[in-house]
Amino acid sequence: MSAKPTPLSGFPELLPEQRFVEQQVIDTLRRTFELHGFAGIETRAVEPMDQLLRKGETSKEVYVLRRLQADAEGADSGMGLHFDLTVPFARYVLENAGKLEFPFRRYQIQKAWRGERPQEGRYREFTQADIDVVMKDELPFHFDVEVARVMAEALSGLPLPPLRLRVNNRKLIEGFYRGIGAADPQAVITIIDKLDKLPADQVAALLRSDAGLSGAQADQCLQLATISTTDSGFVDKVRALGVEHELLDTGLAELAAVIDGCAAVRSDRFEVEASLSLARGLDYYTGTVFEIYMVGFEFLKSVGGGGRYDALASDGRSTYPGVGISFGISRSLVPLMSRGLLSSDRRVPSVVLVALPDEESRPASDAIAQALRANGVACEVAASAQKFGKQIRYAERRGIPYVWFTGRDGGHEVKDIRSGEQVAADPATWTPPEQDLRPRVVSTGSTTEPSAGNTEPHAGSTEPSAGNNEPHAGNTEQTASNEEKQ
Amino acid sequence: MSAKPTPLSGFPELLPEQRFVEQQVIDTLRRTFELHGFAGIETRAVEPMDQLLRKGETSKEVYVLRRLQADAEGADSGMGLHFDLTVPFARYVLENAGKLEFPFRRYQIQKAWRGERPQEGRYREFTQADIDVVMKDELPFHFDVEVARVMAEALSGLPLPPLRLRVNNRKLIEGFYRGIGAADPQAVITIIDKLDKLPADQVAALLRSDAGLSGAQADQCLQLATISTTDSGFVDKVRALGVEHELLDTGLAELAAVIDGCAAVRSDRFEVEASLSLARGLDYYTGTVFEIYMVGFEFLKSVGGGGRYDALASDGRSTYPGVGISFGISRSLVPLMSRGLLSSDRRVPSVVLVALPDEESRPASDAIAQALRANGVACEVAASAQKFGKQIRYAERRGIPYVWFTGRDGGHEVKDIRSGEQVAADPATWTPPEQDLRPRVVSTGSTTEPSAGNTEPHAGSTEPSAGNNEPHAGNTEQTASNEEKQ
Repeated sequence: MSAKPTPLSGFPELLPEQRFVEQQVIDTLRRTFELHGFAGIETRAVEPMDQLLRKGETSKEVYVLRRLQADAEGADSGMGLHFDLTVPFARYVLENAGKLEFPFRRYQIQKAWRGERPQEGRYREFTQADIDVVMKDELPFHFDVEVARVMAEALSGLPLPPLRLRVNNRKLIEGFYRGIGAADPQAVITIIDKLDKLPADQVAALLRSDAGLSGAQADQCLQLATISTTDSGFVDKVRALGVEHELLDTGLAELAAVIDGCAAVRSDRFEVEASLSLARGLDYYTGTVFEIYMVGFEFLKSVGGGGRYDALASDGRSTYPGVGISFGISRSLVPLMSRGLLSSDRRVPSVVLVALPDEESRPASDAIAQALRANGVACEVAASAQKFGKQIRYAERRGIPYVWFTGRDGGHEVKDIRSGEQVAADPATWTPPEQDLRPRVVSTGSTTEPSAGNTEPHAGSTEPSAGNNEPHAGNTEQTASNEEKQ
Repeated sequence: MSAKPTPLSGFPELLPEQRFVEQQVIDTLRRTFELHGFAGIETRAVEPMDQLLRKGETSKEVYVLRRLQADAEGADSGMGLHFDLTVPFARYVLENAGKLEFPFRRYQIQKAWRGERPQEGRYREFTQADIDVVMKDELPFHFDVEVARVMAEALSGLPLPPLRLRVNNRKLIEGFYRGIGAADPQAVITIIDKLDKLPADQVAALLRSDAGLSGAQADQCLQLATISTTDSGFVDKVRALGVEHELLDTGLAELAAVIDGCAAVRSDRFEVEASLSLARGLDYYTGTVFEIYMVGFEFLKSVGGGGRYDALASDGRSTYPGVGISFGISRSLVPLMSRGLLSSDRRVPSVVLVALPDEESRPASDAIAQALRANGVACEVAASAQKFGKQIRYAERRGIPYVWFTGRDGGHEVKDIRSGEQVAADPATWTPPEQDLRPRVVSTGSTTEPSAGNTEPHAGSTEPSAGNNEPHAGNTEQTASNEEKQ
């Protein structure tokens, strides 16, 4: 290479001090998922095009692969990069059904790719974390509660602005619309879904003109959509609207169970909310639906989502229902990092820089470093025997908190270069305070409103495509959620 | 999806019980790299084609990306998937040079892609782990010793057949060839590199015909190549050949330093060997060169490699020399797994299955599970309230070692289903023995010779391309090393 390369738009990369944060986020998620019995898998980055193309409008965002050495006409390989983790997971389940035990709880933390127009929070390459529970033939409802609780627990441990898990239930709203006598509940759902873009009176007009509702019926639908509670209080509010339907009863009970199931996780850093306007990809979700928002960063739209789908996959003999949630790691972290709101205090994992009095002492310094490592203390030896002042600045520039010195008498001292305190220490036994063992996340003003100016919120989204009847299909109205299940 | 999908050749995927092993390998590598102060980074999967195409013959293996929605002629995006981690790392260093501190120690554990013919140990998608130290302008030699030791330490902790790190030094052999009066040392190197494919007398003939050596000179070269020692004993053996050259002296000292520097890591699971026949990509390596072999699986060729390169990258103003080693994770693990030699004893991370007496008891069982998780014990609650015998078999099929029962009196008992032992226990305090906390790696007969029949070793390799003067360029004679630096 002979000139300075420039970043590729839509392909964010992190500096080492930022990557620590991402890695810690991934470790925290993984740890929580595993505590709940979710097994980690990875799927290959590529899927056959025919699988990827079944996803409606997302197809045009697929990156197709071609081997350079293929024939001169540039024939495609028939493969493309996956644009989510659900299509590959469904394929993996079918391919390995005979070797998996059901219920199959899996987590998957991987990159995905979409060739869409890059903007803040929407990247062409992004990392996401998915959990799903999949069963053969029938999946008991309690797994809806479980995935909500597991993801809530995992997310509430992250160094992010407060997150909000919004939950709704398709049975609830479909039952309600049926209960008021709507002939085409799906049409109502599609129109109600526009509430975050259109004023209520325009939505009401559409409900009358396009879904054939009366003015009173339209009003009832809008009233339902205004209901939002952080506990199961929504049940009484829905009941007060006076609509009766068996499916509504089931939906109310399910949504209440999910909201109550997450009660223990609720905090000022993590909100759980029954949100009856949430419509999210309801053409394939069949019950619970989720979306995740980052408080103060709502312009990013959802940073995660998911739901229950009664046919994640089917091989003709068996059907595999599932329920899952996806969290957009890049989608949430990268905007914070690019605004300078999130990083860590070190550029290296080292806790200690072992100083080097002269090049001849390198073996001795190496031995000290190895003794420290044996106790789990990450460290490095100075690259060259500069003056100690320069070695201390070397540590400072990297955020390494301690410098280790060996005196002429063979005595050891360790200096905390933040406080300047220097004490005698034994490399065989010394360890730093627990909080110095790893780089620390530095989160700045992350709960405040982001400044205007460097944001590109609310970019164009497309209309839902017809026939988009699979879970997590590519494009529905809420396309902005590009790092998650839809 | 409506039919059972079949695996894609060259894109290996793991079952959950296998993925545990891969994840543990990655964790072990990462832990060791970080203890030595190496910072983890990830680079995007794609690079501009002009960067990828500078790599000689590998170019034809590059997967080019095209957006499906691009114009009808299928114009390429100008990007391709990276085929190693060195090209992207060199680009990352240049792009971020102003934001990095040098020496920059980095590790990178990621997938790469090559569209070559799949065979055992050579995949189209594969994961590899790279460490490199990069400096601005000049990189002291002690980093050669450091990367060897760090990788040796990391690899010696893996649940693999014994590994052998072979080391040589380009200065040593070039100095030797110059010392005997060879007019074109590079030609000698290229021919000596054929020793693993051709008998010694044919190589000698080539040295005479193509490198212009006398019979005596050719003999000396062959004698040098036979030298291989597990300590610095090679120095005396080379000296005994009576050749003198300044470059030879430097090379001998450097190789001895690397071999001695790895002495502490040497064990019956990890061998370090000065191997003077090793020629590995010597057109761009400038000093130390490495290759890694898996004992008993030499037919896979090397499962890793690397070396010192005096110009990893250059932006016209500055040059960035580096030294690094790459280890092929897929390349070493997948052949063992596909032969059934390596797996783990669980399909789930759960240590405990909390039994469910009846569906009404689910909240109580959930509470027990949460108490266990609070102590770091991964667990899951039974999916349904089957008879306890069935719940135990449910645990057995997953490899979960313990089942937790609650008596009608509210008392708790935990059963080790391997021994049948059942004891009273308190969910607030119980923890399993340390070795049960995580799935255990099960390694079967991995040190025995693999059976013939399902191997495809020694597939065709191509001649080195001319002008291949960059580190880790694509194809040189030892192309079989497809998961590593070359």
